[in-house]
Amino acid sequence: MSDELIKLRDRLREFARVRDWDQFHTPKNLSMALIAEAAELVEHFQWLTPEQSRDLPPEKLAAVRHELADILVYLVRMADKLNVDLLAAAEKKMAINERRYPAGKVRGDARRAAEYDSRAPSE
Amino acid sequence: MSDELIKLRDRLREFARVRDWDQFHTPKNLSMALIAEAAELVEHFQWLTPEQSRDLPPEKLAAVRHELADILVYLVRMADKLNVDLLAAAEKKMAINERRYPAGKVRGDARRAAEYDSRAPSE
Amino acid sequence: MSDELIKLRDRLREFARVRDWDQFHTPKNLSMALIAEAAELVEHFQWLTPEQSRDLPPEKLAAVRHELADILVYLVRMADKLNVDLLAAAEKKMAINERRYPAGKVRGDARRAAEYDSRAPSE
Amino acid sequence: MSDELIKLRDRLREFARVRDWDQFHTPKNLSMALIAEAAELVEHFQWLTPEQSRDLPPEKLAAVRHELADILVYLVRMADKLNVDLLAAAEKKMAINERRYPAGKVRGDARRAAEYDSRAPSE
Repeated sequence: MSDELIKLRDRLREFARVRDWDQFHTPKNLSMALIAEAAELVEHFQWLTPEQSRDLPPEKLAAVRHELADILVYLVRMADKLNVDLLAAAEKKMAINERRYPAGKVRGDARRAAEYDSRAPSE
Repeated sequence: MSDELIKLRDRLREFARVRDWDQFHTPKNLSMALIAEAAELVEHFQWLTPEQSRDLPPEKLAAVRHELADILVYLVRMADKLNVDLLAAAEKKMAINERRYPAGKVRGDARRAAEYDSRAPSE
Repeated sequence: MSDELIKLRDRLREFARVRDWDQFHTPKNLSMALIAEAAELVEHFQWLTPEQSRDLPPEKLAAVRHELADILVYLVRMADKLNVDLLAAAEKKMAINERRYPAGKVRGDARRAAEYDSRAPSE
Repeated sequence: MSDELIKLRDRLREFARVRDWDQFHTPKNLSMALIAEAAELVEHFQWLTPEQSRDLPPEKLAAVRHELADILVYLVRMADKLNVDLLAAAEKKMAINERRYPAGKVRGDARRAAEYDSRAPSE
């Protein structure tokens, strides 16, 4: 894990400790807090065209930056509670993705992962 | 930004480039992909008690580790597309949170942020 | 509440009863199940253009129909557990929305509700 | 479809028409709005114990009622845009669920659907 992520993790530990919030930070609850933040991100983009979403006005970008930060905060907190090394997990996952979606097979074609895997659509 | 996050960002850039997937990676679309991954995380915890969520069996923890990785992947990708420095944003946000929730005022009391701020509940 | 929604509610009660699943159906857990279904819906649309999303191929539409059904199922179940009359709540909410977004003021202009209300952007 | 849901659908059509908001109501955008509302629901429950979530204080229940209404509103709107009969879809889905989770097999045991189906955990 990178030094900066460790620093952030420790800051979050201390933040929770002095507020006595550890009792609320079960992985279950943190997964809810994380998706609530992800939804605040989505909300910023819901009525925008794809093009508008690439080119946000400064005040909207500032708000989006806060939402991205909130997601990282809960992600680091959750990984800490579950003893997961986020960066190691991401590297491992990318190695899987690189094999799973061979460039020659999927170029320019974005489907849901489930569709590439030709599982039956979930009912 | 940390060296490791830069390395991950660059790996994701290359992953998208060779697959010609940049065309799909608008911030709007990435916000959708991110919340879909956050929901896969939530799904692992939805029927668990808080206690069970702290103590996952190994195969479930392995699956959860993949979901956390997926969230980090889309978070880093989205931040890249919007030129946001995730770690700087998180530090700035934590400074806000530390002022916004003074330990003496909120100790042991978890409410929604909106409730502390005594805004009217959103309708 | 409409007869058909009552019929669905009763079918869901029976479904949970014979499986002894009531113990899992706390409002907290149901809110998680509901958002997980909403995310499966989002996943179908994440890489589509707005235009493509209006004109789904038949097999994708069939899958989307199942997701919409899942959302309704958990919504009805949750409302039942909280003794909420969904249709009455929706009518009350639409009366609020009609006053809150006067046609003359918002015509052709979609922002986030929070932006119309000119609250400060949430941090 | 029930008369009351048709009435709500028609009210939403008129609501969008007079505001010229149909242009924003692509299925893609509506799926985002729907999950954002689902997340507002989740947010009410994120720090509650399962027991607390069953027994909400009146003002919180009133707020939750509004969130449930918002979800129904976007669900009905989305079904309208895709020509889906929500109640027929839910009945069809419940018939599938009743076969898929035989009471004798799953009694008292809540897992993720994917786990019952003994698919490999999604990577």
